[in-house]
Amino acid sequence: MKGTVLYGPRDVRFEERDAPTIGQATDAIVRISATCVCGSDLWPYRGINPVRQPTPMGHEYCGIVEEVGSAVKSVKPGQFVIGSFFASDNTCPVCQIGYQSSCQHAEFVGTAQAPLLRVPLADGTLVATPDVPTGDVVPSLLALSDVMGTGWFAADAANVKPGKTVVVVGDGAVGLLGVLSAKHMGAERIIAMSRHESRQKLAREFGATDIVTERGDEGVERIKQLTNGIGADSVLECVGTQQSMMQAIQSTRRGGYVGYVGVPHGVELNGEQLFFAHVHLHGGPAPVRRFLPKLIDLVWKGKINPGKVFDLTLPLDQVAEGYRAMDERRAIKTLLRP
Amino acid sequence: MKGTVLYGPRDVRFEERDAPTIGQATDAIVRISATCVCGSDLWPYRGINPVRQPTPMGHEYCGIVEEVGSAVKSVKPGQFVIGSFFASDNTCPVCQIGYQSSCQHAEFVGTAQAPLLRVPLADGTLVATPDVPTGDVVPSLLALSDVMGTGWFAADAANVKPGKTVVVVGDGAVGLLGVLSAKHMGAERIIAMSRHESRQKLAREFGATDIVTERGDEGVERIKQLTNGIGADSVLECVGTQQSMMQAIQSTRRGGYVGYVGVPHGVELNGEQLFFAHVHLHGGPAPVRRFLPKLIDLVWKGKINPGKVFDLTLPLDQVAEGYRAMDERRAIKTLLRP
Repeated sequence: MKGTVLYGPRDVRFEERDAPTIGQATDAIVRISATCVCGSDLWPYRGINPVRQPTPMGHEYCGIVEEVGSAVKSVKPGQFVIGSFFASDNTCPVCQIGYQSSCQHAEFVGTAQAPLLRVPLADGTLVATPDVPTGDVVPSLLALSDVMGTGWFAADAANVKPGKTVVVVGDGAVGLLGVLSAKHMGAERIIAMSRHESRQKLAREFGATDIVTERGDEGVERIKQLTNGIGADSVLECVGTQQSMMQAIQSTRRGGYVGYVGVPHGVELNGEQLFFAHVHLHGGPAPVRRFLPKLIDLVWKGKINPGKVFDLTLPLDQVAEGYRAMDERRAIKTLLRP
Repeated sequence: MKGTVLYGPRDVRFEERDAPTIGQATDAIVRISATCVCGSDLWPYRGINPVRQPTPMGHEYCGIVEEVGSAVKSVKPGQFVIGSFFASDNTCPVCQIGYQSSCQHAEFVGTAQAPLLRVPLADGTLVATPDVPTGDVVPSLLALSDVMGTGWFAADAANVKPGKTVVVVGDGAVGLLGVLSAKHMGAERIIAMSRHESRQKLAREFGATDIVTERGDEGVERIKQLTNGIGADSVLECVGTQQSMMQAIQSTRRGGYVGYVGVPHGVELNGEQLFFAHVHLHGGPAPVRRFLPKLIDLVWKGKINPGKVFDLTLPLDQVAEGYRAMDERRAIKTLLRP
């Protein structure tokens, strides 16, 4: 088969790779219905994370189970499934408390931009939908594999509750789905920090009540003006830079909550500054598996439509253009169809 | 009157100062029944925090109201009162959500190692006991002014709940009272990290079930051994150094809670490391005022006896020896009587 391989900065190739096979009795092979390019794929694409060797890409996926290992019990060939970017056994003590992305046997699933994917620990990782979905629902189901689960975790970690005021830092797919999550959790006021018109529009569609275009200290000042001078109850950090992290912390009221899901790049938090900020801080790689059953149910019933973040759809063999469009911010998120 | 003044590293003097007077209509003057030396007083005493000018000392206090300004309504002369080290109006939006130590009008109360003390914002700061206490209860009431309130906040911030496993990093008065707080909140297992026999003894008396003497990576390793390999549900950080902070974070299970109350000195948290640690982090200057009514009630009814942390009592004019004894770790905490 052909699959996606990153050779170095801005060098994405779609080339011949071995098709995956069952290696462990707990594996499953999934025939990909749709996959996509993640904001975090842009870190190595831009050379910010070094690419030391040709690297297969892709960690967001959904599709039809093609084959399962002899130990797999909870999914079977023919089912439509979604999994997280971290395979998990879902039975270890860490999984049991809901942190499957830190499973004691976690394995990164990183070769999904291809027609076929090996998923380890299939029983603990994959969740089947009630039936094989119609094509129009596939983008929203695909979003659950990472960006929607991550936006939801950001809102959950930021303790979003009915009636609260929420700020979302970052207008990528995760930030936008953080807005959607906050709306679904009953937030009264949702302030999206965004400078891009198309993203502002989608943020409003997902439930943002206010848009703040300023960044850094000016952005914080604007948030204070909008929140009685004290800052927001909950702030979702969906970028991962020093500036975005500080913007999030300083936009939060004393005793408020920061949920951070942007993978930190070069972030250092000064202990004293954090101490006097008096905020709650929680985040990390989203335990998407925890949220999959609930989120699948919401999509299945038509209550949320996170697939709207895909504003570019390409055949998988045009994956390189999919990366380029996101790198140049011509697309929020690229969906790829094998 | 004579009061305590720090001139420079290890230079504490008890010398003539102006007696405080009512300056604002919201002030009260309190005749100190007991005051004490705080672990945080040792930072400037040891020269770690610079002492730029002769500085009156002391931020823990209880005593009898001597005089109140014309606007003071909730306390009156003759009442026995306790207040926090941060005066607060207790009415601003930050106070209303329980973060009085970050009150929009917060003022540090820093001249308490003296016979008389001016307390600003008396209505929002001072809480009266049901009656004038007998002398034996005074140490426990004094402890509420900072160390007990701070230990309690550490446990509260670390989400201590019945049946949980708790680790306490730091065996100073705050750490020991963190143990007491965790016990009172129903923790099942309380692991105190301590190398000092007298402090271990008091930790056990307050409810510690295990003692770990190792520090740093070895300490973390030991905690993992004691907690099914995953770490504790709740960890109280009561020191404020880089080592203690990392020890606390790494001793916490994924999804667990770190409550940190040691004022950070030179602490820098690496964003990526924190991200993958997957912990909740909350702390800061303890909003003691929030907890005073409840803690006074617990002391008054004899349910907790935090005054046990005072293992040295001196007349106020021997304050310099009080600092020395704590600096040399001959005393856990020095109580001073005017």
